[in-house]
Amino acid sequence: MQITVIGPGAMGLLFGGKLAACADVSLIGSNEGNLKEINSKGVTIKSSFGDETVTRMVPAYRGGSRKEPADVVMLFTKAYQIRDVLNENRGLIGPDTLLLTLQNGAGHDRVMREFADSAHVLIGTTKQGSYRESASVIVNSGLGETVFGGASTAGEQAPERGRLEELRDLFERAGFPCAVSDNIRYEVWNKLMINASSSVLSGILQVVQGYVAENENAWLVCEDLIREICAAAAGEGAVFDPEQQIARVRAHLKNAPNGYTSIYADLKYGRKTEADFICGAVVRAANDNGLRVPVQETILRLVHAMEAR
Amino acid sequence: MQITVIGPGAMGLLFGGKLAACADVSLIGSNEGNLKEINSKGVTIKSSFGDETVTRMVPAYRGGSRKEPADVVMLFTKAYQIRDVLNENRGLIGPDTLLLTLQNGAGHDRVMREFADSAHVLIGTTKQGSYRESASVIVNSGLGETVFGGASTAGEQAPERGRLEELRDLFERAGFPCAVSDNIRYEVWNKLMINASSSVLSGILQVVQGYVAENENAWLVCEDLIREICAAAAGEGAVFDPEQQIARVRAHLKNAPNGYTSIYADLKYGRKTEADFICGAVVRAANDNGLRVPVQETILRLVHAMEAR
Repeated sequence: MQITVIGPGAMGLLFGGKLAACADVSLIGSNEGNLKEINSKGVTIKSSFGDETVTRMVPAYRGGSRKEPADVVMLFTKAYQIRDVLNENRGLIGPDTLLLTLQNGAGHDRVMREFADSAHVLIGTTKQGSYRESASVIVNSGLGETVFGGASTAGEQAPERGRLEELRDLFERAGFPCAVSDNIRYEVWNKLMINASSSVLSGILQVVQGYVAENENAWLVCEDLIREICAAAAGEGAVFDPEQQIARVRAHLKNAPNGYTSIYADLKYGRKTEADFICGAVVRAANDNGLRVPVQETILRLVHAMEAR
Repeated sequence: MQITVIGPGAMGLLFGGKLAACADVSLIGSNEGNLKEINSKGVTIKSSFGDETVTRMVPAYRGGSRKEPADVVMLFTKAYQIRDVLNENRGLIGPDTLLLTLQNGAGHDRVMREFADSAHVLIGTTKQGSYRESASVIVNSGLGETVFGGASTAGEQAPERGRLEELRDLFERAGFPCAVSDNIRYEVWNKLMINASSSVLSGILQVVQGYVAENENAWLVCEDLIREICAAAAGEGAVFDPEQQIARVRAHLKNAPNGYTSIYADLKYGRKTEADFICGAVVRAANDNGLRVPVQETILRLVHAMEAR
């Protein structure tokens, strides 16, 4: 199977590097220096959970330079770059190419659908974690399941089940526990429940995530956000019980109180965040279903106002 | 007229120092060193608008040490200290004592009413500005009208008109342009319109106030806040047109884009803010009238969550 991974960051190198053991993988990036280093040294994957280190040669190319359609194109760029990289790499997308994203947030499929039909757009989530030590060296810091499925809605043509199973088998052979979901939107919203509530609040407040559960006022805002996310998700066919979700998010924060979120780091270092695919996805889904989510909308605007300082 | 000013900060020294020219003024404070300096050096008032400097001896006492009822007790502490200082200085409040606050925000009169009846509680606003150079030296940095009036509501006994006029005359003789208002709540909400929208946002975002009008997302939140304040104010009998108020706040920000607000400074230096009397007053008034103001409520909670970091 020919797999092209766009975005050779921490997660892109993890999936690209491990999948290369059992598929014909190539990487697409934009930083000339990083691509050179990957091509000369290979991709090195260390593990937080043992002393196993693997180095594997995986060819890395500049965006736009490859014109052969791949079997699978995996997106691991920042969420807000999807449209630009797909435009730049249209040559990789043929009529049979599957587009797959495991990026945080929701709403990526709306952009991906500009480049492929409902039978070829896959969305998903992963509990794998990874951080980068250098342009070609990453540390696999989190294990856990990867889940994906077709983003098609009722009445649309869904992806061929056989191809999804084939891809799942490939992931598992490469060392990623994996499942195909018939209700992938539920999985996506399940992850969004934390990202669009406590994670974004820890970013705005510039605190460790545990603070959101410990501070009474932060927690009241978090509860409002969770209730709004549940309302928005229900309109998208993913039904959650708000009180259960409030308890789940609270337990998550108590389990890892000292963790920092990526939106915390983005705001701290003055970088653009993925808020449009986190908070923005909630606001869009709510509005599409005739709901208002004023707390989420306010939080999204505050994040954007902070990015632009 | 015997006037006691509680809170010898920048504004307390300005009013106490100038009123002492034509009334029997004393100051009440808590910082032993500051009181000593005031008692030995007098209160010195410089002016941003000329080279006039006045020094006047005004006796300053520790809270709780004075037991004679005053004709007027003026409050210039932080808003959240009102209940504590009034409890400590109950001896100053007799059956004929007028309690007056010119502090920012709304809702002070709810606390003041625990210590005096409807005929003796006055609220107001002032465009005077002042900053402190030392414990006994302040600079009068803003001129403009002071307006006050009874906080009584329909059906309650209002303060005697004669006494209000007498107090107004005294203010004017002391150099403060002054008016008595029959609709003082309107004036209070008029000031809150800016304090509970752009001022608090500039604090949360840690930016100069002009940024709130310049950044599209900050401004959208500001507009939401103004609409909510108008709804809350209407329930309190102060009717504003939201679009006019949006234009007014915008003009205010364009006129002084580089100004920093007090809530900006409080959050920057990790101090408690007056948000409970600014945003909190809006939320309370809305809730009392059966309205929800989710954006203001979220902003208030974020300020409190930031204070506690």
